[in-house]
This record gives sequence, C-alpha cells and structure tokens, in this order.
Amino acid sequence: MNFEEFKNCGLRRSLNILSGKWKPLILQNLFEEDRVRFVELWRNMPRVSKKVLAEQLKQLEKDLIIERTEVHNFPPEVYYKLTERGQKLGPILSELHSWGNGLA
Amino acid sequence: MNFEEFKNCGLRRSLNILSGKWKPLILQNLFEEDRVRFVELWRNMPRVSKKVLAEQLKQLEKDLIIERTEVHNFPPEVYYKLTERGQKLGPILSELHSWGNGLA
Repeated sequence: MNFEEFKNCGLRRSLNILSGKWKPLILQNLFEEDRVRFVELWRNMPRVSKKVLAEQLKQLEKDLIIERTEVHNFPPEVYYKLTERGQKLGPILSELHSWGNGLA
Repeated sequence: MNFEEFKNCGLRRSLNILSGKWKPLILQNLFEEDRVRFVELWRNMPRVSKKVLAEQLKQLEKDLIIERTEVHNFPPEVYYKLTERGQKLGPILSELHSWGNGLA
C-alpha cells in the first residue's frame, strides 16, 4: 500500500472523522433526539467547555456528519442534527458500542 | 451523564482503542492474513518507523485486540494475530470501511 492509497482508505477516513474526545457522546445525543440545541448538548456532557464542544461540532459539520441550523428567534437558537450520511452511521456505532461494553 | 458513565461508555471505549494513526491499517493487515510477521507488517505500511509501529502494536496488545507470539528460531521471529475479541471487530470495521469509502 502506498501513501496515496493509505490516505484514501475508507476505514482510516471513518476513524479519523470519529476520533475526538467528545464525538462519541455528541453522536449518541443526536441519535437519541431528532435535533438538539447547543445548550442542551453542552448540559448533557460532563466537564467540557463550550469552546471545546463547539470545536468538535464544527469538525463534525465540516465532515458533513451533522448539520447546524440557526433559528432567528429572540434569543436566537442553534440546533444540530444528523445529516443523511451521519444517520447511516447509526447501526455501525451501535455495534461498536456493544462491542466496547463487552470488554469489561 | 456523569463523568463515571462517560468513562465507561462502550462507544467511547471502542473508539479510543481504534484511534491511532496506524491502527486501521494494522487491523486490515491482520484481517487479511491469519498471522503476520512484524517485518511484513512494517513493509506493508507506508512511511512509518519501526518504533512507532511497535508502539501501536503494543497498545492493541494491551487492549487485548491482538496477540504477540515469539518463535525461537534463528533468527527469532515475532508474529501478530487477532484475538477472539479482535476478530469480533471484523464485520463492524468492514462496514465502517464501506461507509468511509462512500464519502468521496
């Protein structure tokens, strides 16, 4: 395998996208509810700053796994939800979750 | 979710184990062949030092995903193969691989 093939390897790409301290938890929250407000998401996480959470969300958004919507209420609200691509991860992540739980 | 629950979350644990620049490639090699020699593995990777490869293998060994066997030939040979736990990852990683390939 040369470096070009390595860069394009699907497994490597998937794991790159999913690697990030808070990403598993963000995704779990989004699989549980249709759409989640930023502030709710933040409250559901233990010990994470808003700045760090926002960065992880931005990465997932860039990778087209989640979608950000701004609702122009007063005060304005920011929602996140899974894209179609993100939703396809559901069954795979649920298997990974069970596998991880079986390790204890 | 409190911090204790977060630490024990199965998905978080699985992704932690799988996160590492060369781990996807190591696992792919081990799924393709029953057992692989260290030197073969190293030749199949692009641009990685033996030191770094050995570290990633050590982590996977510590997480009980792979098994190291030393054969006392002359010169001695070191083999790696998947454990039963590691083999269970096969179908999951193959789905992740397809998902990752579909992103292009």
